[in-house]
Amino acid sequence: MNIKALANLLGGTLQSDDPDAEIVAVNTLQNAREDEASFLASMKYKADLHRSKAGVFLVALDFPEEHSRGKNLIKVADPYLAFAQLQRHFHPATCSSGKRHPTAIINSAALLADDVDVGPYVVIEAGVTIASGSIVCAGSVIEKESSIGHDCMIHARSVISYGSVIGDRVILQSGVVIGSDGFGYAWTGKEHLKIPQTGRVVLENDVEVGANSCIDRGALGDTVIRQGVKLDNQIQIGHNVEVGAYSIMASQVGISGSTKIGAGCQIGGQAGIAGHLNIGDGIKLAAKSGVLGDLDAGGTYAGYPAIHHRTWLKVSALTARLPEIWNQIRKKK
Amino acid sequence: MNIKALANLLGGTLQSDDPDAEIVAVNTLQNAREDEASFLASMKYKADLHRSKAGVFLVALDFPEEHSRGKNLIKVADPYLAFAQLQRHFHPATCSSGKRHPTAIINSAALLADDVDVGPYVVIEAGVTIASGSIVCAGSVIEKESSIGHDCMIHARSVISYGSVIGDRVILQSGVVIGSDGFGYAWTGKEHLKIPQTGRVVLENDVEVGANSCIDRGALGDTVIRQGVKLDNQIQIGHNVEVGAYSIMASQVGISGSTKIGAGCQIGGQAGIAGHLNIGDGIKLAAKSGVLGDLDAGGTYAGYPAIHHRTWLKVSALTARLPEIWNQIRKKK
Amino acid sequence: MNIKALANLLGGTLQSDDPDAEIVAVNTLQNAREDEASFLASMKYKADLHRSKAGVFLVALDFPEEHSRGKNLIKVADPYLAFAQLQRHFHPATCSSGKRHPTAIINSAALLADDVDVGPYVVIEAGVTIASGSIVCAGSVIEKESSIGHDCMIHARSVISYGSVIGDRVILQSGVVIGSDGFGYAWTGKEHLKIPQTGRVVLENDVEVGANSCIDRGALGDTVIRQGVKLDNQIQIGHNVEVGAYSIMASQVGISGSTKIGAGCQIGGQAGIAGHLNIGDGIKLAAKSGVLGDLDAGGTYAGYPAIHHRTWLKVSALTARLPEIWNQIRKKK
Repeated sequence: MNIKALANLLGGTLQSDDPDAEIVAVNTLQNAREDEASFLASMKYKADLHRSKAGVFLVALDFPEEHSRGKNLIKVADPYLAFAQLQRHFHPATCSSGKRHPTAIINSAALLADDVDVGPYVVIEAGVTIASGSIVCAGSVIEKESSIGHDCMIHARSVISYGSVIGDRVILQSGVVIGSDGFGYAWTGKEHLKIPQTGRVVLENDVEVGANSCIDRGALGDTVIRQGVKLDNQIQIGHNVEVGAYSIMASQVGISGSTKIGAGCQIGGQAGIAGHLNIGDGIKLAAKSGVLGDLDAGGTYAGYPAIHHRTWLKVSALTARLPEIWNQIRKKK
Repeated sequence: MNIKALANLLGGTLQSDDPDAEIVAVNTLQNAREDEASFLASMKYKADLHRSKAGVFLVALDFPEEHSRGKNLIKVADPYLAFAQLQRHFHPATCSSGKRHPTAIINSAALLADDVDVGPYVVIEAGVTIASGSIVCAGSVIEKESSIGHDCMIHARSVISYGSVIGDRVILQSGVVIGSDGFGYAWTGKEHLKIPQTGRVVLENDVEVGANSCIDRGALGDTVIRQGVKLDNQIQIGHNVEVGAYSIMASQVGISGSTKIGAGCQIGGQAGIAGHLNIGDGIKLAAKSGVLGDLDAGGTYAGYPAIHHRTWLKVSALTARLPEIWNQIRKKK
Repeated sequence: MNIKALANLLGGTLQSDDPDAEIVAVNTLQNAREDEASFLASMKYKADLHRSKAGVFLVALDFPEEHSRGKNLIKVADPYLAFAQLQRHFHPATCSSGKRHPTAIINSAALLADDVDVGPYVVIEAGVTIASGSIVCAGSVIEKESSIGHDCMIHARSVISYGSVIGDRVILQSGVVIGSDGFGYAWTGKEHLKIPQTGRVVLENDVEVGANSCIDRGALGDTVIRQGVKLDNQIQIGHNVEVGAYSIMASQVGISGSTKIGAGCQIGGQAGIAGHLNIGDGIKLAAKSGVLGDLDAGGTYAGYPAIHHRTWLKVSALTARLPEIWNQIRKKK
């Protein structure tokens, strides 16, 4: 594909003496060869750009002229988004082909679209439905009465427990567990009595779940992950949690039972949120934060217990200075 | 089952004009239909109770008369426990039937009771024993010389490594790893020399382990999880740890090697406990705490390093006010 | 093996009246029998030594004479290292034998050395190469074009995703996921657009990865774990991270994307390091720390945000005293 066509694909403006130059892949500024495109997500990498051999660069609309000399540029509103689009162009998602490995055990009472791929040693139980275009990789287990939408990618060794509802274009990375029992017991005075967990897990369309993450089924009622939510690796979602549309969580986050998280939230790695809370839409939560109360929509929070991020920055700076401050105070006395 | 029989089952007192009303399930106050029971764990949900359509409500002995009008009530000592008992009545644990999937590989030198269920693609190695009533689900691997007691439920894709000892009525959720090598190396001056981990894991009766949790085998001697311990998802237990009877841990807790945790402890999510410590019986540890020293029995602790919870509450409140306090102090000067 | 031979093996000095005493295993001071060796890693366990029945003790060169009476001793520079060496002597690593379970699915376009062991229900895809001496245990999946060096141990139910490069003597504990997609999206204004992750994971020689840990493939370019790195259980390594040789991380650590960690680092459990950082060689990072900026080589750090450990100790002590200090200050006014 030549860079003129590339510019068209991305809806960008080409600035080049050589619009016919061929591009075969995308790469980093450091590693790109002459037949590869690269991108400048921030001007702080401009030195790397000048050293780069890339055949064309995706840059911002306001990219300064003085850095443009002798380079093929495609100017776009968002170079990082353009990079994503280009990667998707060169690496389209794998398509299903209807290939069924002979060792796949597909219950006769399961209903799979003709073109669904099923890998070796996959187990698909009775009452499961899987729609067109989906791929279930080696060693995964889809328990009874679960449904999977179209164009899903279930990576190797995932477990989807009974009765789960998976939307369209959902991606589960390897080792994911959907529908494990929630952590529910009642104390009898002698022992913890297990409460049967009879709800389900519902993953809406375009959800992605990272490797070895777990989403517990509801105790009563459902655990629901709304449209477009992206969860990183080793995340734990407790029973009856609801995560709002397009929210995103970095790895090792834990959400305790019955908490409701709004739409469009961004939650940093290793953060934890206690149970039965209401977290407003669009909040940002710093990594490692611990949330013990409701959070108002739109705010940015940090710390444990979590407070406004701006306050937390001041608190952190002062806390680190406590020994020095305490010395000052003692001298004054 | 009618609500009169229900009251008998729960040892509660029925207060109703319609003792023959039929109940088929349990549900939340919000979602219960007329043929479903619900429960009021706390008076703060009393508004939900008044809006609820449930056919009968499990309430506390001191439930006030003014909220009772026109409702079928069963008064019990602990409505949450009664709810648990009712759920268990309507959803009894799955029973084993002796079903062996033809793809299960059961070594001829393994000894399984006749009624043990073994799912597809399960691997059971030589010297394994499994007692009556247990179920091993799809894709699990039980390595050599391990023993599993009666009425256990080993969910899909669990690994029980060689020589592990699993008691009766133990539940492993999907993706659990029992008996992975502990993290033991000696520095040679050039590299970390792996120390063969030759101990075992022992899970006593009625233990439950959450999805994708890991319990390392002992380096020498055993890692021991005592009777009735409940571990949530993604917990990590290091080598030679001992967890006392009926202790309970929320998800993503990590316990470092050789630490001894007492009986009846409650440990919050994402808490961590350093190695070689003694944690007394009955302690409560707040979520995200980090324990660096021994903890006396019966206390409630929080923070990192963990301190008494009461002190921690004061410290947290003051810490969040540091910017304001510091301003005050500077003005005084 | 008699204790004279043992002393030779360890390069230690034997001090004993009975050099022919036979030793068959290693055990703890508490549990060792008369035909077992034990070791004293620190003088604080000397009471245990006096109560121990062990047939011989590995002790430090400066072990005091007054504790030696009537005991067989082997004096060595590092008793813990000698213990490790002895454990390795009595428990040599399992050797491969070329055993291929008939249910192993090995693609005809995969190339395995003759003596590679492959367990039941293992899946090995096209283009995979596995060198001599390696063992792949039950239920593991090795995706296409991955390479595994010699004498590796891939425990049960691991996943090695396509194109991964695994060196020699690498150990993966059960449930490990190598090469899951990194967490990369571009926001379109409407949704998070997934960026295909096209890099690889490279594990150099002598790396060990703990149970249920995950290492993401590079977005572009590789995620690289250098020679001799040891990772504990449930660790998460983001895309394009590089971990320097012989660094070691305790369980539940998370490293965000594109961070470069130096050689010889020691990172405590549940610590987290943000993305795009440079962490110098030989640093020590306390458990539960959160790193938000670059760290200079050789330092010891703690806290969130991480600061020098010495400062952190003072800060922690003062923070715990804040209520008392604040009372003092208020009285002065």
